[in-house]
Amino acid sequence: MIDLLEQGTNRPRIDFKIVIGILGGLTFFLGLSLLAPLGVALIYNESSWQAFLFTAVPAMILGASLFYIFKPQYELRMREAFLIVSLTWLLGSLIGAFPFTLSGTLHSYTDAVFETMSGLSTTGATILGGVTSDGIQNPAIEDIDKSLLFWRSLSHWLGGMGIIVLTLALLPLLGIGGMQLYKAEYSGSTSDKLTPRIQETAFLLWSVYVGMTGVQFLLLWVHPSMDWFEAINHAFSTLATGGFSTKNGSVAGFDSVYIDVVITVFMFLAGINFAMHFRLLSGDTKSFFENREIRFFSLLTVLFTVLVSGGLWLIDNYEFGDALRYGSFQVVSIITTTGFGTDDYALWMPFASFLLFLLFFSGGTAGSTGGGIKMIRILIILKNVVREFRQIIHPQAVLPVRLGNRIIESSILKNILGFFVVYFIIFGIGALIMSLMGYDFMSSMGASIASLGNIGPAWGEFGPTDEYAGVPYIGKWVLLMLMMIGRLELFTVLVIFTPWFWKN
Amino acid sequence: MIDLLEQGTNRPRIDFKIVIGILGGLTFFLGLSLLAPLGVALIYNESSWQAFLFTAVPAMILGASLFYIFKPQYELRMREAFLIVSLTWLLGSLIGAFPFTLSGTLHSYTDAVFETMSGLSTTGATILGGVTSDGIQNPAIEDIDKSLLFWRSLSHWLGGMGIIVLTLALLPLLGIGGMQLYKAEYSGSTSDKLTPRIQETAFLLWSVYVGMTGVQFLLLWVHPSMDWFEAINHAFSTLATGGFSTKNGSVAGFDSVYIDVVITVFMFLAGINFAMHFRLLSGDTKSFFENREIRFFSLLTVLFTVLVSGGLWLIDNYEFGDALRYGSFQVVSIITTTGFGTDDYALWMPFASFLLFLLFFSGGTAGSTGGGIKMIRILIILKNVVREFRQIIHPQAVLPVRLGNRIIESSILKNILGFFVVYFIIFGIGALIMSLMGYDFMSSMGASIASLGNIGPAWGEFGPTDEYAGVPYIGKWVLLMLMMIGRLELFTVLVIFTPWFWKN
Ligand SMILES: [K+]
Ligand SMILES: [K+]
Repeated sequence: MIDLLEQGTNRPRIDFKIVIGILGGLTFFLGLSLLAPLGVALIYNESSWQAFLFTAVPAMILGASLFYIFKPQYELRMREAFLIVSLTWLLGSLIGAFPFTLSGTLHSYTDAVFETMSGLSTTGATILGGVTSDGIQNPAIEDIDKSLLFWRSLSHWLGGMGIIVLTLALLPLLGIGGMQLYKAEYSGSTSDKLTPRIQETAFLLWSVYVGMTGVQFLLLWVHPSMDWFEAINHAFSTLATGGFSTKNGSVAGFDSVYIDVVITVFMFLAGINFAMHFRLLSGDTKSFFENREIRFFSLLTVLFTVLVSGGLWLIDNYEFGDALRYGSFQVVSIITTTGFGTDDYALWMPFASFLLFLLFFSGGTAGSTGGGIKMIRILIILKNVVREFRQIIHPQAVLPVRLGNRIIESSILKNILGFFVVYFIIFGIGALIMSLMGYDFMSSMGASIASLGNIGPAWGEFGPTDEYAGVPYIGKWVLLMLMMIGRLELFTVLVIFTPWFWKN
Repeated sequence: MIDLLEQGTNRPRIDFKIVIGILGGLTFFLGLSLLAPLGVALIYNESSWQAFLFTAVPAMILGASLFYIFKPQYELRMREAFLIVSLTWLLGSLIGAFPFTLSGTLHSYTDAVFETMSGLSTTGATILGGVTSDGIQNPAIEDIDKSLLFWRSLSHWLGGMGIIVLTLALLPLLGIGGMQLYKAEYSGSTSDKLTPRIQETAFLLWSVYVGMTGVQFLLLWVHPSMDWFEAINHAFSTLATGGFSTKNGSVAGFDSVYIDVVITVFMFLAGINFAMHFRLLSGDTKSFFENREIRFFSLLTVLFTVLVSGGLWLIDNYEFGDALRYGSFQVVSIITTTGFGTDDYALWMPFASFLLFLLFFSGGTAGSTGGGIKMIRILIILKNVVREFRQIIHPQAVLPVRLGNRIIESSILKNILGFFVVYFIIFGIGALIMSLMGYDFMSSMGASIASLGNIGPAWGEFGPTDEYAGVPYIGKWVLLMLMMIGRLELFTVLVIFTPWFWKN
């Protein structure tokens, strides 16, 4: 599917026909997906069915037309892949925003695009329930149509689907931020073409994703506090590590230990590489439990749960059981970048809340639906630190960084270094722009990292009980671009803005 | 002087005799240095002359005895060098603290050690003027003896002297955090022994340091607001990028545009590699002005001055001239990690203050007296980012990171990656410990980075008009260890705590 060598063709450097054709196909699929919330609108007899119809039908017609007119005839090449991936999330948000405005739910198209990008990027930051910078009161979450709530959760779930295949099948080939580690492992070949394998891989991974969503749906549905609608929405949001809820108060709105535990467990699972879930389900328990990244992820989760719960118990004077319940939920929610809430961590005493703040710079494992920096990168740079100390003592020795039996090449370390640097630069620029709009440090830094890391809730004026409605419109565009850049592992989007992308 | 290969000896792996012997020599030198504030005490007829005498004489006797008993007979080896360097700053602080307590100025020995480590590490954070956690009112800066003020400034200046030689002559040989870049350049050889050269280098660099201190002293002295004593103290503090002042209100206490400009210029110069100053003074203007790190440092200084001054002018509604005056001073003070203040940046609106907060993660050039991450590391990782983008587009190409004509090897990139990771881990741990003591986010993060980066003033409860008196004693030990770790480029200290240091 991807011809990295770009040999033997008379085609232009970037074949926009193939880009438009594939984007057409994806637009058709988006229109098709909008039929699901349309169905929900019909079930609940909501007038917003028209908004979905008037978005879905044109999207399907336009998408199908473009696909057939520019029917892809050649192998997809690298530059085209970057353009398609980036434009998919942007276009998906621009189109998927229409039901919010057409139904009259939101007045501002910017707010609608923010909400949709927040959905598709699995961020879960919302503009619902607050007053915009020009004084418009956006409706509360529980006051909008169920079909629109469903569309929010579904957008998470579709975004998660896209990300799983992207990170496990496409990005390894594109050499993004260390993801080439997975090249041989998951794409099944080190050759440059993977047409048959990418489709097979996608199908297997999606089966796991759909199956796990189904299991969580059932586990939530059996609880009396949740009807089928709430159960499916939260299952979508959990597996995608998204964080949109159907309650104004997020998961706290159900106030059930059982629901908290189910969601905690499934957030944790959603933070794990879906290729590893597939292996586990295929009976290959060894691969799963000996996977260094999964171990490290589990270790960090347990460590932070102990520290945060301990802080809540001893410093914040929570009951022991409550400390564990709220501590574990919030730790798993942030480390996996889900962003569901059962407690307002911004009100915790400094120790527990600062620990959670540190987790804003983590992220689940690669190949999960979690955003952020991700465990594999953190693990590898920590291993490099250990190597560095040994190297100082033994300057003549050749000491590679190892992950299990595997030696991590210098080129991958440089990739990861590049990723970290770009991540913190974008974070800093995002926070600086927010500070230019007058937001204090914690609000500015929080909004930037919560968007870039696809977490959702942040700090200061954007705490877990607040929303983003009041951000000036230009700021909303900045934040939604951060969501997209973060979700697509930075380089996929940013490389398009380099001169080398457009010339040889 | 250093036998990296450690061949052909029957000596123990770590020869503590040589460690004790050299530390004895340095203790003698410290005692000798204490005669200078003793002289100041006599000039001003202060009773604290006794405190200096009772510290200086035992230090000289003990130091000289140890030096002669354990007279170094062998070449210094790597492990011994790490121990000596780390213990020099620790021992210097433990001994140099006595005049503060013996004179009755400070009741707490911890506070005295904090103040001395803050001096020797060129940090400039103070516990003077505040109330300790157990309710003791420490005297204000302007209320203590001039001899003790002189000792504070002198400790900066001595620390700066040590750092210049350490970073330009010793650390390159020890392979610390990318400093081996300077191996061939400044130590004059790539061989493992450098006995003659290290002394020659040190003498030349110190001549420049002394000369520049003298010039600044004269420029400050000619101003009517400064007497000779204030001029020499501020010259010491500036050249060392230290930040201790003789005024409660720091440099703002003089309220003179002339003094602000002189100190701004000399802080900037003190943030530049002293080997480059030597070259410039030797007539080699080309090396100086074409040096990539100096250019990058200048560029960042100008960029942030424009942005911060612009913010002060347009958002904080300063007069244009005031915006430039206070903006440039504070930017140069923080980017060089000096920490002098002429304005309370914590009261600025978010944009200008957030820009300054970003500079807390910078630092001057390597080989200057500035602390922090330093320009060379930032420049190299930014170059690696550019390479990374090009590499994605041209996956088959071999693209090295270049600095001028020089290719930066992968090993140096890994060193620098290691440095960054350790820097942020230590920063996070420091902030977490402060948060455990109940400090809010900005106070915790500020105190940690201001100590680790040897800046001094921070944020929240530790803003430029506040002090560190109220920090619980255990917290003061944590912060002073951060100062030492940061000042000695992290690895020099931390490597001692690894198992590889103590076994083969
Ligand atoms: K999320
Ligand atoms: K300083």
